[in-house]
Amino acid sequence: MNILEKLKFDANGLIPAIAQDFKTKEILMMAWMSDESIKITISSGYATYFSRSRQQFWRKGESSGNLQKIISINADCDFDCLILQVEQTGPACHTGAKNCFFNEVFK
Amino acid sequence: MNILEKLKFDANGLIPAIAQDFKTKEILMMAWMSDESIKITISSGYATYFSRSRQQFWRKGESSGNLQKIISINADCDFDCLILQVEQTGPACHTGAKNCFFNEVFK
Repeated sequence: MNILEKLKFDANGLIPAIAQDFKTKEILMMAWMSDESIKITISSGYATYFSRSRQQFWRKGESSGNLQKIISINADCDFDCLILQVEQTGPACHTGAKNCFFNEVFK
Repeated sequence: MNILEKLKFDANGLIPAIAQDFKTKEILMMAWMSDESIKITISSGYATYFSRSRQQFWRKGESSGNLQKIISINADCDFDCLILQVEQTGPACHTGAKNCFFNEVFK
């Protein structure tokens, strides 16, 4: 069985994907992927998510140039979450921040 | 406005939470939290998730002893995903693996 067939998608056909800088291990962002967007990501070599608000594929950095080159993709123990190890060009967040997780909730 | 009030929960009242080793930056696991489980996590100092299958709170490591001491919690730019920086005791994965992401999908 192809490992892609083992992946478990939610009721909307999506799986959460965490993008991590492959060198610094910084967590850059979390977005959602469909089965098709995973296949596009693998064949193109660049992270392509599925936008829940726009209901369409979204090649990260397509307009900004802040692409994510895929180094590797791993699934977790129960196949319902992915980590993308990526080489990030520019900031990962649409706000211009290096990563999306700048809101401190507790420290 | 308290930052907890800004968090966006899904239709089931849950938000994805990524646990990351605060020293090594290894991503350990991803699980789900409810508003109440975040409050329990903050007040207890240990990661407490919400089990979707069992529909109950789940203090990570309660039975195994593999607790996650909370160092900090951050939310992303649109407040719909959390990172928990944790000090992990023992393996994070129920399989005994150090982290849950051992299934290689693409390299």
